[in-house]
Amino acid sequence: MIIVTTAGISPDALDRLIQHVEAAGLRAHVSRGEHRTIVGCIGDDGLLSEHGLTQLEGVECVMPVLKPYKLASREFSVGDTAIRLGDPADTVVGGREVVVMAGPCSVEGAGMMRDTALAVQRAGARLLRGGAFKPRSSPYAFQGMGEDGLKILADVRAETGMPVVTEVMDPRQVELVARYADVMQIGARNMQNFALLSEVGRVQRPVLLKRGLSGTITELLMAAEYIMAQGNADVMLCERGIRTYETATRNTMDVAAIPVLKRETHLPVIVDPSHAGGRAHLVTPLALAAVAAGADGLIVEVHPDPACAKSDGEQSLTFDVFAEMMRQVQAVARAVGRECAVGAAAGGWRREVTA
Amino acid sequence: MIIVTTAGISPDALDRLIQHVEAAGLRAHVSRGEHRTIVGCIGDDGLLSEHGLTQLEGVECVMPVLKPYKLASREFSVGDTAIRLGDPADTVVGGREVVVMAGPCSVEGAGMMRDTALAVQRAGARLLRGGAFKPRSSPYAFQGMGEDGLKILADVRAETGMPVVTEVMDPRQVELVARYADVMQIGARNMQNFALLSEVGRVQRPVLLKRGLSGTITELLMAAEYIMAQGNADVMLCERGIRTYETATRNTMDVAAIPVLKRETHLPVIVDPSHAGGRAHLVTPLALAAVAAGADGLIVEVHPDPACAKSDGEQSLTFDVFAEMMRQVQAVARAVGRECAVGAAAGGWRREVTA
Amino acid sequence: MIIVTTAGISPDALDRLIQHVEAAGLRAHVSRGEHRTIVGCIGDDGLLSEHGLTQLEGVECVMPVLKPYKLASREFSVGDTAIRLGDPADTVVGGREVVVMAGPCSVEGAGMMRDTALAVQRAGARLLRGGAFKPRSSPYAFQGMGEDGLKILADVRAETGMPVVTEVMDPRQVELVARYADVMQIGARNMQNFALLSEVGRVQRPVLLKRGLSGTITELLMAAEYIMAQGNADVMLCERGIRTYETATRNTMDVAAIPVLKRETHLPVIVDPSHAGGRAHLVTPLALAAVAAGADGLIVEVHPDPACAKSDGEQSLTFDVFAEMMRQVQAVARAVGRECAVGAAAGGWRREVTA
Amino acid sequence: MIIVTTAGISPDALDRLIQHVEAAGLRAHVSRGEHRTIVGCIGDDGLLSEHGLTQLEGVECVMPVLKPYKLASREFSVGDTAIRLGDPADTVVGGREVVVMAGPCSVEGAGMMRDTALAVQRAGARLLRGGAFKPRSSPYAFQGMGEDGLKILADVRAETGMPVVTEVMDPRQVELVARYADVMQIGARNMQNFALLSEVGRVQRPVLLKRGLSGTITELLMAAEYIMAQGNADVMLCERGIRTYETATRNTMDVAAIPVLKRETHLPVIVDPSHAGGRAHLVTPLALAAVAAGADGLIVEVHPDPACAKSDGEQSLTFDVFAEMMRQVQAVARAVGRECAVGAAAGGWRREVTA
Repeated sequence: MIIVTTAGISPDALDRLIQHVEAAGLRAHVSRGEHRTIVGCIGDDGLLSEHGLTQLEGVECVMPVLKPYKLASREFSVGDTAIRLGDPADTVVGGREVVVMAGPCSVEGAGMMRDTALAVQRAGARLLRGGAFKPRSSPYAFQGMGEDGLKILADVRAETGMPVVTEVMDPRQVELVARYADVMQIGARNMQNFALLSEVGRVQRPVLLKRGLSGTITELLMAAEYIMAQGNADVMLCERGIRTYETATRNTMDVAAIPVLKRETHLPVIVDPSHAGGRAHLVTPLALAAVAAGADGLIVEVHPDPACAKSDGEQSLTFDVFAEMMRQVQAVARAVGRECAVGAAAGGWRREVTA
Repeated sequence: MIIVTTAGISPDALDRLIQHVEAAGLRAHVSRGEHRTIVGCIGDDGLLSEHGLTQLEGVECVMPVLKPYKLASREFSVGDTAIRLGDPADTVVGGREVVVMAGPCSVEGAGMMRDTALAVQRAGARLLRGGAFKPRSSPYAFQGMGEDGLKILADVRAETGMPVVTEVMDPRQVELVARYADVMQIGARNMQNFALLSEVGRVQRPVLLKRGLSGTITELLMAAEYIMAQGNADVMLCERGIRTYETATRNTMDVAAIPVLKRETHLPVIVDPSHAGGRAHLVTPLALAAVAAGADGLIVEVHPDPACAKSDGEQSLTFDVFAEMMRQVQAVARAVGRECAVGAAAGGWRREVTA
Repeated sequence: MIIVTTAGISPDALDRLIQHVEAAGLRAHVSRGEHRTIVGCIGDDGLLSEHGLTQLEGVECVMPVLKPYKLASREFSVGDTAIRLGDPADTVVGGREVVVMAGPCSVEGAGMMRDTALAVQRAGARLLRGGAFKPRSSPYAFQGMGEDGLKILADVRAETGMPVVTEVMDPRQVELVARYADVMQIGARNMQNFALLSEVGRVQRPVLLKRGLSGTITELLMAAEYIMAQGNADVMLCERGIRTYETATRNTMDVAAIPVLKRETHLPVIVDPSHAGGRAHLVTPLALAAVAAGADGLIVEVHPDPACAKSDGEQSLTFDVFAEMMRQVQAVARAVGRECAVGAAAGGWRREVTA
Repeated sequence: MIIVTTAGISPDALDRLIQHVEAAGLRAHVSRGEHRTIVGCIGDDGLLSEHGLTQLEGVECVMPVLKPYKLASREFSVGDTAIRLGDPADTVVGGREVVVMAGPCSVEGAGMMRDTALAVQRAGARLLRGGAFKPRSSPYAFQGMGEDGLKILADVRAETGMPVVTEVMDPRQVELVARYADVMQIGARNMQNFALLSEVGRVQRPVLLKRGLSGTITELLMAAEYIMAQGNADVMLCERGIRTYETATRNTMDVAAIPVLKRETHLPVIVDPSHAGGRAHLVTPLALAAVAAGADGLIVEVHPDPACAKSDGEQSLTFDVFAEMMRQVQAVARAVGRECAVGAAAGGWRREVTA
């Protein structure tokens, strides 16, 4: 149930309203906008009388929420969620700018991370991606550099000022990863790893939540709800292709998920064209399609030498192809009323590591 | 097997080459470009000696074709196929312009067809769509107006000059439909109706071939090959969403199919965002995504009063929403180096019916 | 809407009831059982007053039918449909016996058909399968022997007494195929070829309707409805595997479709383990699973020399493996209260060709 | 690479062989059968000379393993893996008997667990299932009783002698669950939770590994490999239905996965007809199909009062329906040369809790 308040409800009236909701055994979630404030109720709202609520001072109307997700639903929020990253926090995911995150699949060493960061930053990328803990389908494959990889990411951030996004796979590593990362990534295989979702929900670090290989849009939103229910509201949703019968591509990018999500939720929507297509030549057209359909950001695999990458080389872009992709992304972004940085100030300004 | 000839091969040398191929029991398919000519061989090419071929005058090199499709494959053609429509034939599908086809799901009457045609033409659509024979999952549902519907289409074409695209479902109706239509549509459920494919292959009318509900990209190309093998080279391929586990949308638009097809074949690629999404609010974002990913055209359902449509009302656009979509399509088309007509000359110039 | 009559309703009362239904513009479909008779109404039953009906003599009660299929629905029929085949008509599909149909994918010649027929008959098969018109994904592949193949089937039937099942792909061939075949097969790719469905509905020959590659159970029943709506009530439904993401098997056999169909419809359910698995070693376990789950019959590919088959060799059984499969099928059939012939009277008795 | 030794290889020769393998930097895995012993090599076997190996005493032949899974592959093992459970360890999963595990979805209390255990044991079930930690798609739904639930399971085991199988969702709970459970279940959503797989691999407790919602058969085997690579060899694989486009059932039971797995791996294969079908009336036919296709066991949801179950009530059987299912399972098991206990000794003999 959602309670919409009148413009200019007094703080006292709002307090009384919240107490009223909580007295009925529900949790109240307040979303403040410029012109109105919404109070969402979580729990068995059969316990609340709608009539009683509309009698309270400052209540304009009461609406049911039929969706299984509450905190993640558009109704629960006044306006879109924008997530600020970096120090200074001048990168905004969920605003007018289409934010691009780029980097190699895995952190393979300090040199290649630094080179890649400088190259993608020069081309316009705002965040640096790179996996230190890698979910590999074979136990005998390269599993990532672990904490050493995280340290490299932090060093490169110190040099370039780029916030970093990196995967966390184990609830026991959440604290460690949160110490180094600006954004914690939950991989597709862990979309319904509820122990992990709850754990990242307890930390105040933004989360990039990838849709599962065969996750429905509703399940993706419920997974976000798991994180948000623990108190972490900064969740970005990521479409990365779903599993279908078609084998011409690694996965099938569900481009319609973007407008469906933008309608259902206030959370930012990111698209991963690299995993969706699985081949380098598909990355640019899929990136453009995502931006045209309304994506708030992209996460793209870039490698200094894709043929020698320890993982996902087939779908990684070279620096040059990435730079060309960015120019096209900018053109499409502008065509749909968005913006996208291209050829950002090079130079690698120093900043303090926030971790 | 493909034989690439040297620039400036003489007509005689080309003739001798073709005779050589045919003497070995294969069919020769010639594709002429500005700078070179390609001769594709269909049949058991084990019968041809590669060495013998390269000895012939005017042969530059010989390459194997590993794909099961021949005539539809990019290797068999010098450059992209462009299909000219209308009288004068000034609408080109497969060229620089993104061509939009629009109209109601079903022809419901003369008045609504005329109104719709004028409205979509004014907004920039080049072709008029409308079904006279409807494939309905229930035998008790409206099955279309049949030949009366075709006549209405022809009348509206006479008035507006818009070429028309309409579905043919039965090999016995191919001749009838070809008499009225500028483009014959093969619906998704008939993508592997081989009797129908062969029949439309015998007629010299362009074909819009829709991908089956769970057709692979390779199967779509093989279906095109069925048509082309009978002599009809003017095939447009249409992505219209595939069947997956996701139920938030009617189908899952496989946007990656566009760049995959553009790489595999020289045939134009059209996208149907109406059936892909199944809901009106998804049509515009899906149309923009399709154009950004490289589609050569769109086919969109538009109805004067979607709530009262006899079929597919849920996914049909109103005239106003369609016009707004066209403006956005134009912007994205330009961003990716294409063009798209918007607000085409109204006025409904007369022309003779070609049928 | 379904009208259940009282036991012993008089013929006159039943006539009056039917006239009442038809006077309201609906079609009445009568299903007579031992103890009761059901009158199903097809059309807009909002035109009939339920109260008015219950006032009529002989009406026990009136029930709504919410399913989109009517004639195919279990509610419309008193008891299961059993289809009698052969001359004498001693093969019953839909009775206590699990009926096995076997033979090669394609009719390749008279000798191999005769050999196969005798071998599978000896092992217990009741019907002979074999394709004369073949739906092939490539236009350059073997397309079947056509009418010559049908003649071979008729000759082998004359010699062995086995009814034959063979595919029809084109509405223009229905009459021809019906002249030779005891059962006309509609292939998976044609499940929603509505022109073909209607045409076989106009002929009085039993139909084996295969589920489409991604057909839902409801769509399969609607396809049966198309046939039945034209007057042909003898439809067998065939599960043959659906298309999923799994590539370890050719298709994914949806074994649960069997009990779902047995609950939804009165029509017999046949299973094709050959196409479902796509590999010979999977045929027997899938056949056993189908029978255990309640299938009324099986259709199995058997070839004298699978390695040399013109089509589907990888999934065809040898005579010996088929005979062993039949022994196991019989054991499982008995375990679930059914019967299955094994080692049927060899000898090949003569009978007149009914075609 | 697999090294097959000659019959009667001496312990010394075997030792030398293992040392030879390990000297090349590979891990040697020894599987001893009655007549021969197999040494599997894990690692980069390009480092081993095949010729050098065949020169060693006691080596019969050397074979490559092309599959990505090693320890789980049939080639790596002499014969099937049989897992002994209980105290005395008289329940054998992977032997001639089809072993049935039954119980409620969730442990809801001591009384209902005790009642259910006695009822399913009386009907022939060998193991008791019941979830204490529940993976729920909503964070607001009942999440299970936790350790209190585990204690109830242990108490009921003490009374009935039935080994218990229960889910573990979090690597931090593995030790706790292993203390109480006889079999640790990995749920479908965690099939590729590699942190959890590795953790259960470090504990000496059998594991029931469920196939993911859209897990391929190869991925399921790779998940088993993760567990086995850590040293825990007792893995049972569980088919529980996959996600497809069909909505008539909760999931699509991939019955062909059973014979495919039996060919690929030596591990036992269990089937969960409750989650596969999602409706009570489908459980028996799916269970029979699974046994007919070669399943080594079943895991079935049974509840004293399905309508009031806290989870999965729609697919749970009553005691009576379960008992009838067991009688039919026994009949089919015998038809395929297996056995299945029915109406096991009631009485609830005492035994010491092993935890």
